[in-house]
Amino acid sequence: MIKPRTPPGVMELLPRDQIAFQRMLDVIRRNYERFGFLPVETPVFELSEVLLTKSGGETERQVYFVQSTGALEKAGEGMPELALRFDLTVPLARYVAEHEHALAFPFRRYQIQRVYRGERAQRGRFREFYQCDIDVIGKDSLHLRHDAEMPAVIHAVFTELGVGGFTIQLNNRKLLRGFFEAQGIAEGERQALVLREIDKLDKRGAEAVRATLAGPDFGLSGEVVDRVMDFVGFRSSGHDEAIARLSALRAEGEAAGNESLVTGAAELAEVVALLRAQGLPDGDYAVNFSIARGLDYYTGTVYETVLDEHPQIGSVCSGGRYDNLASHYSKSKLPGVGISIGATRLFWQLREAGLIGAAESSVQVLVGLMDESRLADSLAIAGELRGAGINTEVQMEAKKLARQFQYADKAGIRFMVLSGEDEAARAVVAVKDLRSQQQAEVPRAGLAAHLRARLAGEG
Amino acid sequence: MIKPRTPPGVMELLPRDQIAFQRMLDVIRRNYERFGFLPVETPVFELSEVLLTKSGGETERQVYFVQSTGALEKAGEGMPELALRFDLTVPLARYVAEHEHALAFPFRRYQIQRVYRGERAQRGRFREFYQCDIDVIGKDSLHLRHDAEMPAVIHAVFTELGVGGFTIQLNNRKLLRGFFEAQGIAEGERQALVLREIDKLDKRGAEAVRATLAGPDFGLSGEVVDRVMDFVGFRSSGHDEAIARLSALRAEGEAAGNESLVTGAAELAEVVALLRAQGLPDGDYAVNFSIARGLDYYTGTVYETVLDEHPQIGSVCSGGRYDNLASHYSKSKLPGVGISIGATRLFWQLREAGLIGAAESSVQVLVGLMDESRLADSLAIAGELRGAGINTEVQMEAKKLARQFQYADKAGIRFMVLSGEDEAARAVVAVKDLRSQQQAEVPRAGLAAHLRARLAGEG
Repeated sequence: MIKPRTPPGVMELLPRDQIAFQRMLDVIRRNYERFGFLPVETPVFELSEVLLTKSGGETERQVYFVQSTGALEKAGEGMPELALRFDLTVPLARYVAEHEHALAFPFRRYQIQRVYRGERAQRGRFREFYQCDIDVIGKDSLHLRHDAEMPAVIHAVFTELGVGGFTIQLNNRKLLRGFFEAQGIAEGERQALVLREIDKLDKRGAEAVRATLAGPDFGLSGEVVDRVMDFVGFRSSGHDEAIARLSALRAEGEAAGNESLVTGAAELAEVVALLRAQGLPDGDYAVNFSIARGLDYYTGTVYETVLDEHPQIGSVCSGGRYDNLASHYSKSKLPGVGISIGATRLFWQLREAGLIGAAESSVQVLVGLMDESRLADSLAIAGELRGAGINTEVQMEAKKLARQFQYADKAGIRFMVLSGEDEAARAVVAVKDLRSQQQAEVPRAGLAAHLRARLAGEG
Repeated sequence: MIKPRTPPGVMELLPRDQIAFQRMLDVIRRNYERFGFLPVETPVFELSEVLLTKSGGETERQVYFVQSTGALEKAGEGMPELALRFDLTVPLARYVAEHEHALAFPFRRYQIQRVYRGERAQRGRFREFYQCDIDVIGKDSLHLRHDAEMPAVIHAVFTELGVGGFTIQLNNRKLLRGFFEAQGIAEGERQALVLREIDKLDKRGAEAVRATLAGPDFGLSGEVVDRVMDFVGFRSSGHDEAIARLSALRAEGEAAGNESLVTGAAELAEVVALLRAQGLPDGDYAVNFSIARGLDYYTGTVYETVLDEHPQIGSVCSGGRYDNLASHYSKSKLPGVGISIGATRLFWQLREAGLIGAAESSVQVLVGLMDESRLADSLAIAGELRGAGINTEVQMEAKKLARQFQYADKAGIRFMVLSGEDEAARAVVAVKDLRSQQQAEVPRAGLAAHLRARLAGEG
């Protein structure tokens, strides 16, 4: 006998939790499609040679390699032929480069699949997790306006998820670069290091970050550190304040001949203006100069999204603009902008925070069986309900009624329908709502319409 | 520069094919839910020790093992710790055994995920493919009536898929065993071998199978071979004929004291009777005594489904009844019945047969942009359409109109909406249906309702 168990670092759910999780994925997918993104799925494994072109040591150490039994037996020195994807961006780059001539640009794709990382096993850290990505990829160029679509999609998704207030925070890497150049931090590598420290603001706190920046690793003067900390402390409290601050920065940049600052401030102002044009409520987005996104990858607009009541969860949806998606695979220049929701981690954290519970069953009605002779009637009722679009299960054995109710209750099924001889003689069925515990008789001919109305929330 | 390419043996689709494939998966999922099955997802990899308990050499040779970089470096002699699932049945067994106390029985689960087999690369053979499974698992026992639910689900799925006529073929392993015992082929192993030959009837033809059975490997007498071939040649041409043949077999069994034959014929007759009770049309199911299903796994009812116009595709949905799901993981007896649709292979074959083409885009409307000053209006229109549940993309740059139409056409988007200054002044929008190539003006205020009606097929 083998003990049945999953490997560590995966999230496997019981059905009612799986239903809640599936609803989350459905909301994300529906909204991605609503905004005109097209579905793409890629294989779980890629050729290692293709997957691992650009990733550095850190990523490579976390990669899972795949070998068939045959390959394992004759394994040589080299890297195994296949590896599991560790994100959806590298597969997207490979996909766009491979199918470039068959795609219409700007290419708008969504992709909702699991990715794999050989993370150290740790509570809340997953080795297998869903990413839900959208990207718009241009050929040669991609208009800045697409950067303003991302917050609109994020807004639609998180509004429908119903997880409370949230704020979509925006920044611009050019703006940041321009600011740092003005502080005498001109070198790209050094900016990246400072940005990485600033990215830790929320986790480490202002004092700790200030100390690091003034310390031996960075050696910034107290004055520069003050200006940096003051700058990155900015977080707009409304649309007009954001626009005003960006105007002022742009003017500063123009006065100083700081091109990066001018471009960055102008880009961010245009994106913010388009958020209002799309009807996003003022309070749901903010400019935040501390947002840098760890990776070197982004070159313009960057996004992070936080739940107002649950800042400890961190960003639930992040992304940004990049200059060239697929330089390793194609000579074409393919700039893009995209965001990603880590759905497994998000679901796990929302559940930990008590914001998501087990769902009611996806089964909406259980047709009970009062005695064996009524089975054909049960099957007929179930057929009608299914025809009306209602998810219906049939009790196949005439067990004790108490046990049938118990089963429906444990399974989270809302309605139980019963039709005994007495009911059949009167052309009615008994309907019990296990949520309200109320029971009523409904004319047999009107059962499907009755249940559809109840399920649609009309009582 | 690395050549962008996928590993052999995977099916990666362009967006419009992916949309068609996604619709197939959605139909399957919706119908599985309609019949009261609950979603389960398991991790792509299992602990090798757990996954490979019972599988024989053949399966094991096809398994993909998974190792993180760290594990690869210190790889010892033994089997790697993780392996990719090769079906959804072993993960289901592990899942049910692991979560037994938290589940309500009979446990009805559906699972739509990809599985992995290190197949020899060959056209139409996939190393990564979707399986779409449903199973009902009982604790200690499971009523035979559940066997009759499977064909009802199959019927609903394939009717909605709209791939032409199909026949759900049924048989019963006890009935087969009883028949073979009566022919003096009593040993289980030998029955299995004969059954495996019979399973090749469609592929090899009757003569070749007959020769093998009469030849040195089996050494059956000509008379026995005749009886076997005659028996397995039975395929009912309607409900009543099926019931009559099963009654006759049952009577034969009773006369001969052949318990297996009696039980098998009675079970199959009850299942067939319940198909009619559920309203399945007579011509859509048939009893076929040649259906054996290769595996030793099944113990009662077995199913195969063929497309009437495309028999060369073989069975598109198969399954059956088994006595004990999880004997390797649990002391509980967990009998079950289930079916599986190999969606990747099915989609690929339907496309090869010309039964499925690329879908229209999931994007239903492209809001064009006639000049830059109209962008805010485009965004407002898109917001309204999305609010009305219409998947809408916005043209973000005022490119030449011909190019905008070209893009919509290439992308398979049905409607293009245009609102220039002239239209705006008259409070109308121009709507072009790229399917019919007809263009009309529609009042701006009624645009969403107009498009919803058109998309719902009312014009």
